[in-house]
Amino acid sequence: MGALRLPSLTSLSSAAAAIPRHRCRRELRLPFRRLSSTNFSAAETELPTTTTPPKPKIQQDKDRVITPRSQDFNAWYLDIIANAELADYGPVRGTMVIRPYGYAIWEAIQDYLNVKFKETGHSNMYFPQFIPYSFIEKEASHVEGFSPELALVTVGGGKELEEKLVVRPTSETIVNHMFTQWIHSYRDLPLMINQWANVTRWEMRTKPFVRTLEFLWQEGHTAHATPEEAEKEALQMIDMYTKFAYQQAAIPVIAGRKSKVETFAGASKTYTIEAMMGDRKALQAGTSHNLGQNFSRAFGTQFTDETGQRQHVWQTSWAVSTRFVGGIIMTHGDDTGLMLPPNLAPIQVIITPIWIKTDEKSGVLDATTSVKESLQAAGIKVKVDDSEQRKPGWKFNFWEMKGVPLRIEIGPRDVSSRSVVISRRDIPGKQGKVFGISMESSTLVGYVKGKLDEVQSSLLEKAKSFRDSNIVDVGSYDELKEAIAQGKWARGPWSASDKEEIKVKEETGATLRCFPFEQPQGTKKCLMTGDPADEVAIFAKSY
Amino acid sequence: MGALRLPSLTSLSSAAAAIPRHRCRRELRLPFRRLSSTNFSAAETELPTTTTPPKPKIQQDKDRVITPRSQDFNAWYLDIIANAELADYGPVRGTMVIRPYGYAIWEAIQDYLNVKFKETGHSNMYFPQFIPYSFIEKEASHVEGFSPELALVTVGGGKELEEKLVVRPTSETIVNHMFTQWIHSYRDLPLMINQWANVTRWEMRTKPFVRTLEFLWQEGHTAHATPEEAEKEALQMIDMYTKFAYQQAAIPVIAGRKSKVETFAGASKTYTIEAMMGDRKALQAGTSHNLGQNFSRAFGTQFTDETGQRQHVWQTSWAVSTRFVGGIIMTHGDDTGLMLPPNLAPIQVIITPIWIKTDEKSGVLDATTSVKESLQAAGIKVKVDDSEQRKPGWKFNFWEMKGVPLRIEIGPRDVSSRSVVISRRDIPGKQGKVFGISMESSTLVGYVKGKLDEVQSSLLEKAKSFRDSNIVDVGSYDELKEAIAQGKWARGPWSASDKEEIKVKEETGATLRCFPFEQPQGTKKCLMTGDPADEVAIFAKSY
Repeated sequence: MGALRLPSLTSLSSAAAAIPRHRCRRELRLPFRRLSSTNFSAAETELPTTTTPPKPKIQQDKDRVITPRSQDFNAWYLDIIANAELADYGPVRGTMVIRPYGYAIWEAIQDYLNVKFKETGHSNMYFPQFIPYSFIEKEASHVEGFSPELALVTVGGGKELEEKLVVRPTSETIVNHMFTQWIHSYRDLPLMINQWANVTRWEMRTKPFVRTLEFLWQEGHTAHATPEEAEKEALQMIDMYTKFAYQQAAIPVIAGRKSKVETFAGASKTYTIEAMMGDRKALQAGTSHNLGQNFSRAFGTQFTDETGQRQHVWQTSWAVSTRFVGGIIMTHGDDTGLMLPPNLAPIQVIITPIWIKTDEKSGVLDATTSVKESLQAAGIKVKVDDSEQRKPGWKFNFWEMKGVPLRIEIGPRDVSSRSVVISRRDIPGKQGKVFGISMESSTLVGYVKGKLDEVQSSLLEKAKSFRDSNIVDVGSYDELKEAIAQGKWARGPWSASDKEEIKVKEETGATLRCFPFEQPQGTKKCLMTGDPADEVAIFAKSY
Repeated sequence: MGALRLPSLTSLSSAAAAIPRHRCRRELRLPFRRLSSTNFSAAETELPTTTTPPKPKIQQDKDRVITPRSQDFNAWYLDIIANAELADYGPVRGTMVIRPYGYAIWEAIQDYLNVKFKETGHSNMYFPQFIPYSFIEKEASHVEGFSPELALVTVGGGKELEEKLVVRPTSETIVNHMFTQWIHSYRDLPLMINQWANVTRWEMRTKPFVRTLEFLWQEGHTAHATPEEAEKEALQMIDMYTKFAYQQAAIPVIAGRKSKVETFAGASKTYTIEAMMGDRKALQAGTSHNLGQNFSRAFGTQFTDETGQRQHVWQTSWAVSTRFVGGIIMTHGDDTGLMLPPNLAPIQVIITPIWIKTDEKSGVLDATTSVKESLQAAGIKVKVDDSEQRKPGWKFNFWEMKGVPLRIEIGPRDVSSRSVVISRRDIPGKQGKVFGISMESSTLVGYVKGKLDEVQSSLLEKAKSFRDSNIVDVGSYDELKEAIAQGKWARGPWSASDKEEIKVKEETGATLRCFPFEQPQGTKKCLMTGDPADEVAIFAKSY
């Protein structure tokens, strides 16, 4: 059917005419400014607090293309963020404005996790963001980890404050201060809460979504009567994040335990999900900490157990942040732009009506509306681009660049045949395009849902095979160095010291990302020392 | 049927025995500490930045009663907040921890408004909370209004900052800084966004929910091509807030326009919804501002219109905050505690199973589960209190104090007769109690939904008649003073000067709350000057 349609479309040239449907690469003309990495990230010296606001620009259609991913991964990433309107720089160095399209991805993440948190017995609440400086100092390794990154409020209501206030970098300290007042007996446990909040860390090297001075996250905090319960909770939450990453974000993360060196400041154990980005760098995409009694001892968070004894509670905390949006971009995006997993896409289907003659317009638009309503009624997130300022070809490029999983085209012939054309974002050109799908609601809805599921699975499979082809099993430090030098992840037996772990970082730039939960059977020898090793670890360069 | 049941219940006295069902007032024994107003609110001098953390307490069942509302409204309010576990004090003076039950009310507010905002074309996004100090100074009246209340970050990452940063008290300045970069032509308009965020105002007199150093809100910001569109938007949003207040919160607010004196710092016009609390003080519960071109001129936010001319955009902003939760408490609460409107109640129905003999337990609990599941399946927010530590009478008190609109009791007799007993929170004692409602799912669901609707309407009607009986029409300043002295709202024609408006405040403590949208017909004479007046205004003491 495609061959029958094409001639009539390629010969069109009126105001709203179509660009040939079989063209795979089309010129992208976008009026947006490019984000420059040098503006956002800055060296540790010479940091201007604010960037100069750019002068207002008149709308202009300069040619803009997204830097090819293979050419410059970082430039490509920033181009996507700017052109897909995911985020923009805030006026203060290292801050980010999350624009509606980027925020909608975050909202989809929130919607999913929020339900899961509640299903597993957690309640949302809200703690103040100002923390007395003295709190941060109470847990020794916590203050050591966070003090270099703090933003401090020293003036309030026109007066110098007696005690400076920390703008929360995380909330363990204030949470424990409050838990100490709420927890009295074993009947008050477990206490399981979560908050959706902004946090501030004065990072020197920033990158939109991945590492910003202020970011959004959820932070869960729980208190339990026994260490076993706390451990179970910490594992439950990293498992929830893992499922979320696989099923919703189509990111095949590797879940595991952090080494002592990489453990959260104040935690006994940190569990992590590590994702491989398109440049093969690792991104820590979520963490869950077993805090043991570290904070409860520092803050005196005690309960009376069933035998009447006073005991310190056992705690966990766990978080996922707007960094995850960066992970989605860098896992699935390609030279054309963003590619969103259907389960988290703000727009799952873009409909482009196409007409040439004025008398065709109303028929095409009526059919478009009817198709839109069918899909919407079925819970599919659909948008119509019926603007007349842009030609269809421009729209195709635009919505592909925005990563919309499916495109539906409806032209006069489609109206006659009561069918539509559907293209997949993840398969370029003819291969991803199917003609003649019936407009009839039940057929179309079923077809579209099926295709969205296919795209979702396909993104995961593609990311999985990319990941697996870039993990190298190594048996010696030389092999590790070679794998890292090739930009890959090195996986090998590890039982060496913290000092040797730090040496690897200094010499190769790679860090120990995790000891994966999935471990090979059999006896192993540490790649560094040759001593017996219980586990393999993964080393990689990371964001 | 009630008479038939009571004897068997009043004679019970085993571990989980019931307290007689006809008792209207029962002793309330709660283990919670009381919030003291002196800890939270403080005079302008001698402000400790942090309060001393209270020592951990062993759980104890001291007798606790909520201060009667008529005796001390403020103490009553704080008692409800503490006992219903809505909020607690944060460690920094004037900050508040919003506990799960209080936060769930805020989430219900968010759920409703978020859908309405999106339906009317607004997109959520997120702006950084740190604003360069110079931004605040750009709009003259804005800096005048906000500079006394600012929290300033002066240290970041261990270094003194070159330019101090304001922790956002509101976001008009940073929004305009960004709008200036995004808006180029009339095609980019209207630009309509919203953000859910925390904001900080260094208030001297604080009160949980009503006025806190940090609070949560939504702030909408829009930019339009014409003043008419901006005005229409500002009115649309105050109308949305009004409907929300009436339909969801059962608060019969009076919507109107603020006087020039009371207009938001930087706005051309401020619209407001004013709610009458149980002590007859006014609470400004939401505002919508027509900003005119004040910020667009200060920040150079311009667009090219259809004729190619550069013009400044016309803007609005509008907000509702966690203060609204305080409004709900102070509108509907009574001596027994909180009373929540069903549409915003985190728990709409509490089910209390009651059994005496061990062999009755499983039958009662099975019936309870089945009733719970029926209601849940119908979308009703239901909770079962089957704890065995507390007697039914204690539970009745507890959940009444928590403001749950309906209580269902299920005892062995109810199981035999396949029926339940339902009590309304808003009608105490026998009058609010109905026996013998069938457990059969469709009957019960229909009955419960109907009752929830009745409670919702009834709360609104009660609040309306309270409001109307406390607004006095006045024709002279003497009458105004008398009405205010009686604690009422004074409504009268007003066309006097700002100076005279300020005089009223100084002499009576009352401020001009608004010129209501609903105005009486006919010619009027200003109550202060006797000059012709176009409108009546409402004066009242306020929070």
